[in-house]
Amino acid sequence: MTRVAVMGTGSWGTTFGMVLADAGAQVTMWGRRSVVCEEIEKEHRNSEYLGELTLPDAVRASTDPAAALDGADIVVLAVPSQKLRENLAHWRDLVPAEAVLVSLMKGVEHGSLLRMSEVIVAGLGAHQDRVAVVSGPNLAREIAARQPTATVVACPDQDVAEHVAEACSTGYFRPYTNHDVIGVELGGAVKNVIGLAVGIADGMGLGDNSKASIITRGLVETTRLGVALGAEPGTFAGLAGMGDLVATCASPLSRNRTFGEHLGQGMSVEEVVKITKQTAEGVKSCGPILELATAHGVEMPIVQQVTELIEGRVTLDQMIPRMFSRARKPELQ
Amino acid sequence: MTRVAVMGTGSWGTTFGMVLADAGAQVTMWGRRSVVCEEIEKEHRNSEYLGELTLPDAVRASTDPAAALDGADIVVLAVPSQKLRENLAHWRDLVPAEAVLVSLMKGVEHGSLLRMSEVIVAGLGAHQDRVAVVSGPNLAREIAARQPTATVVACPDQDVAEHVAEACSTGYFRPYTNHDVIGVELGGAVKNVIGLAVGIADGMGLGDNSKASIITRGLVETTRLGVALGAEPGTFAGLAGMGDLVATCASPLSRNRTFGEHLGQGMSVEEVVKITKQTAEGVKSCGPILELATAHGVEMPIVQQVTELIEGRVTLDQMIPRMFSRARKPELQ
Repeated sequence: MTRVAVMGTGSWGTTFGMVLADAGAQVTMWGRRSVVCEEIEKEHRNSEYLGELTLPDAVRASTDPAAALDGADIVVLAVPSQKLRENLAHWRDLVPAEAVLVSLMKGVEHGSLLRMSEVIVAGLGAHQDRVAVVSGPNLAREIAARQPTATVVACPDQDVAEHVAEACSTGYFRPYTNHDVIGVELGGAVKNVIGLAVGIADGMGLGDNSKASIITRGLVETTRLGVALGAEPGTFAGLAGMGDLVATCASPLSRNRTFGEHLGQGMSVEEVVKITKQTAEGVKSCGPILELATAHGVEMPIVQQVTELIEGRVTLDQMIPRMFSRARKPELQ
Repeated sequence: MTRVAVMGTGSWGTTFGMVLADAGAQVTMWGRRSVVCEEIEKEHRNSEYLGELTLPDAVRASTDPAAALDGADIVVLAVPSQKLRENLAHWRDLVPAEAVLVSLMKGVEHGSLLRMSEVIVAGLGAHQDRVAVVSGPNLAREIAARQPTATVVACPDQDVAEHVAEACSTGYFRPYTNHDVIGVELGGAVKNVIGLAVGIADGMGLGDNSKASIITRGLVETTRLGVALGAEPGTFAGLAGMGDLVATCASPLSRNRTFGEHLGQGMSVEEVVKITKQTAEGVKSCGPILELATAHGVEMPIVQQVTELIEGRVTLDQMIPRMFSRARKPELQ
């Protein structure tokens, strides 16, 4: 039986733990807070994130990372992206040397501008062939309700990707494998920023044509950055690119979209944080992503306008026209 | 001043006439029904399709095709796709020899399996460099409200594409040019069928993950067909591919999505036609598109399942799993 450690008890980490257990694995979750771990361990619930959902018996939990990591074949990392590096420093000596490392995280590290799989490689001294990424149109609450969806498991080593895909494949959760880790991770990270932009448009009262234009041109600029960094264009047309973006932008459950909607209604970032009680991932990632684009000479007008709005350098009325190119030009470059 | 004939007074034809007039053209619409033409001509409204919207003074209308076509620099074709050929036969001698021909239509002709621009070339004996296609995330009612959107003007001749783009460019309507007519037309035609599939999923109560998976895999199979027919993959990632698809699948205004929703709730095609008073374009196009795919050896599982549901050969419960590949496999081929 596959043994899996899931490091992090947030909404997506816990849901993915449920998927793994449904697929036949023995799962131990690690969480920082004992109240959450005890509820998972004793009541098979994570009520703060997943309401009344009952988790399978094969999902256990502990606040002791050593207990969770001991003997794990697969280690799933699901902590906040800007906290990953310091967590890895604590866990470095506890992670089994042969374990496959799976990232559920979407973001770019401040300062270093590294993607999450790169932080894992650096933080654990692991070879990149041991690191896989799972990403796709995967709104956690729908998967928790076991509604059918597809996802992507990416790893440079096809056997490792296949191993992880096998470990999480159920009747309702269908993984496709991909070797393009850069593309899969960038799709997920930039999606949060495009989700903000679509939310802003929504908050301003714009319709489905405008939002579809932002989504489409947003994916075009994401692809442009990806190709500059070595990703394959086809990945962005896939489930971890377009799929994830479309699900996020359609869903009332998306935090980034909702955060943007408040901004589009004229609130400041501080006011929205007060209401939503958190800073959406796209708000944290837009700066580093724009830095990455600038460093590689890639134009990303939508990411740029969102960043400038968040930093108070443009107004709502200015940003929408600036998201699209001023001059008429060929669509294909 | 550019003179434009718009042949067809439906929702999109009339709205595009408004866009052209806003961009400075003198527009004469042709319609079959005198009551519609008189309302446009005298009251500057097309209430059946566009409610209370007031059309610009530069939009005129006539039931006489010769009057509409006389001296036109641009002829916009906006009739039902399966009626195009017989209409062209009537108009053939009236269309000015130098006029640019613009298709707003989305479909594949029954029997011949020709795209609309191909029917125009055949029906008028026109060179393909004179035929342009306009397609994108263009829900007519939102454009009628002058909400901002982008679109694609496609023509093999870049100067012709640029000429049409110039003629319809306004503050709220931003055309990008493209030379890939095949890709732009296929994107629009197959979109209607994918819109049906998404509506069906909605009617069955599936969530945003499932719908995003259908949209994504639907665009992948559309791209596969397009590439087999000589289109460029980048077009499907653009406004006339992904953009149009995303707008359609998000919008409660889409006829195909709404038709699918009723099917997903368990109604028969006949029952839905009775309620919606029309057969959605995707219902008419799915058969010819599947024939085209089969003729080129392309697998289109989503189009196939929609077609089989409509023809009564699968049930709702059978079709959803069959839309996705059974075996786990690499996402990129």
